[in-house]
Amino acid sequence: MKVYNFSAGPSMLPEEVKSEAQKDFVDYKGSGMSVTEMSHRSKWYDEIHMEALANLKKLMNIGDDYAVLFVQGGASQQFAAVPLNLLVKGRADYVVTGNFAGKAAKEAVKYGDCIVAATSKDKNFTYIPENVSFRDDIDYVHITQNNTIFGTRYTDRTYPVANAPIVSDMSSMILSEEIDVNKYGLIYAGAQKNIAPAGLTIVIVKKDLLGHEKDYCPTMLSYKTQADADSLYNTPPCFTIYMAGLVFKHLLKLGGVKEIQKINEYKAGLLYDFIDNSSFYHNYVNPADRSIMNVPFVCNSDELNAKFVKEAGENGLVSIKGHKLVGGMRASIYNAMPVDGVKALIEFMKKFESENK
Amino acid sequence: MKVYNFSAGPSMLPEEVKSEAQKDFVDYKGSGMSVTEMSHRSKWYDEIHMEALANLKKLMNIGDDYAVLFVQGGASQQFAAVPLNLLVKGRADYVVTGNFAGKAAKEAVKYGDCIVAATSKDKNFTYIPENVSFRDDIDYVHITQNNTIFGTRYTDRTYPVANAPIVSDMSSMILSEEIDVNKYGLIYAGAQKNIAPAGLTIVIVKKDLLGHEKDYCPTMLSYKTQADADSLYNTPPCFTIYMAGLVFKHLLKLGGVKEIQKINEYKAGLLYDFIDNSSFYHNYVNPADRSIMNVPFVCNSDELNAKFVKEAGENGLVSIKGHKLVGGMRASIYNAMPVDGVKALIEFMKKFESENK
Repeated sequence: MKVYNFSAGPSMLPEEVKSEAQKDFVDYKGSGMSVTEMSHRSKWYDEIHMEALANLKKLMNIGDDYAVLFVQGGASQQFAAVPLNLLVKGRADYVVTGNFAGKAAKEAVKYGDCIVAATSKDKNFTYIPENVSFRDDIDYVHITQNNTIFGTRYTDRTYPVANAPIVSDMSSMILSEEIDVNKYGLIYAGAQKNIAPAGLTIVIVKKDLLGHEKDYCPTMLSYKTQADADSLYNTPPCFTIYMAGLVFKHLLKLGGVKEIQKINEYKAGLLYDFIDNSSFYHNYVNPADRSIMNVPFVCNSDELNAKFVKEAGENGLVSIKGHKLVGGMRASIYNAMPVDGVKALIEFMKKFESENK
Repeated sequence: MKVYNFSAGPSMLPEEVKSEAQKDFVDYKGSGMSVTEMSHRSKWYDEIHMEALANLKKLMNIGDDYAVLFVQGGASQQFAAVPLNLLVKGRADYVVTGNFAGKAAKEAVKYGDCIVAATSKDKNFTYIPENVSFRDDIDYVHITQNNTIFGTRYTDRTYPVANAPIVSDMSSMILSEEIDVNKYGLIYAGAQKNIAPAGLTIVIVKKDLLGHEKDYCPTMLSYKTQADADSLYNTPPCFTIYMAGLVFKHLLKLGGVKEIQKINEYKAGLLYDFIDNSSFYHNYVNPADRSIMNVPFVCNSDELNAKFVKEAGENGLVSIKGHKLVGGMRASIYNAMPVDGVKALIEFMKKFESENK
């Protein structure tokens, strides 16, 4: 059965990337080896690694004043790594716009005077706070650029203004829309949504922020250690980085982030327009703050929601159940979700509505 | 060209494991999805994850008094995680038998009164110290079971006697020989040698050691957090765990660790016998402490060593260069290296000797 996978992550990878990885899986380009079993110090892997780093820099237009790191442990590990590396004055301000933002803020409290400067918890995280005031003399402001569970995102309108570097968790939107990296001190992202299989985390950090890690910071969590070694301090997740590299090449071939952003806005527009014109489906996010990656929606009862999830799955629209904190459904429509997948979802939504009105 | 890959890690995977992963790469068992893109909360992945955990317990005969964790970051991250989780009295003793053992000891100093109780540095790590005395009132003794670079291993003869749990880095020998897990408080291992592609770390920890992590221990490095969540606290490296699961099934089919140990001893025996009967090749490790996974050897000059590495590579015997700390050659002959690979190496060694004597 043709399946469209609406999982919030790990999530769909481009067809051509999967095909190429499958073709080369046992014998990578005549090397006689699989990328899964190559020495990370071999010339074969070195090319894969360095090309992936270079292509990510190209895609995001990252200057030489930033270090790009391939690390492990997911965004959750960065919740500790960020304060462990960046707290010098010992103070940071967090904006809590969802579940993971809250976890990041909670972890940071272990390492210094870290506070929640603003939150959208009052309206169950259905908007992004504007015009937030931050403390003076802080090391950084932390935001979560796109909130996977609640379906909100930062835009230019809500971008925080502070006298400190902005640190952003871009896990669920990296490479989906154009971002001016120069506006950030540090960007991190789990790769398992828009980039690669799970097991790789991207960190993009301004070099002048490096070298201030706490004395009890684990060596593997030190950005400087990883930057100095081009993320080859120890064995990296080679195959996952190889897959990321294939995705980077695929995006460059499509025309880069600018072009994929147009497609993403088109896909999200189709779905939001359909929901907004329906009285059967609802999305409660402030329209100006809506994510173009994660679209939560509900029917008018828990029974209908459960029926929707079940029947959608039977029709090849899988992993569309909403997170338990929100309920209902969530369509995660990352870069690799084709327009046809969104159209198939809308067709199913129409049919389900007519059968259950 | 048929290639035998003697890399110290990442290293060879069994042919049948690679073939199966390739076959199912784009469409896993009719799910319409690749394992690289499945939600880690899906029923498909849940089965993969739980089966892999159960089969590792079966292979190593691990009792319910131990937690088995699938984490990230490699053994190098465990160098910090072990003291962060296990130091309660604040003291631990390390035996330094090589490069990684030294790194583990160095990292631990950040977290408490951790000392080197013994080392084999005096003879460039060519043996394992015997009858080591450890301090009283320590939290654990740390050893490195197999020393990848120097080609030594612990055996029953050198197993440390202490009034404290034994913590062992088994990265380069896990599942290669029978081990009584009950003799250890904690075992950890990077998976990229005997188990899976890089990006997965195995931790086996006695449950009564859990729950004592320092207050500044990153949540992701807390063994208790991972144990309580069956290693699904956040997104695990799903595809790498899937590959590990295929390797576990492959080993069970072969007859388990007992059977693969016989093959490993046979392979290592062939190579050591050949070297010991030669005046052209030398291995300087104390015979009783020789690793059956990593076999370092040298010719009589640096020029010959370089020529050997080059010509071996041209003949499909790749990644056989020794680590820079030792020089010469190193044949890593992990579980997945076939007997034919070792025989092909010995044939090449004979030919090279006759041409260069």
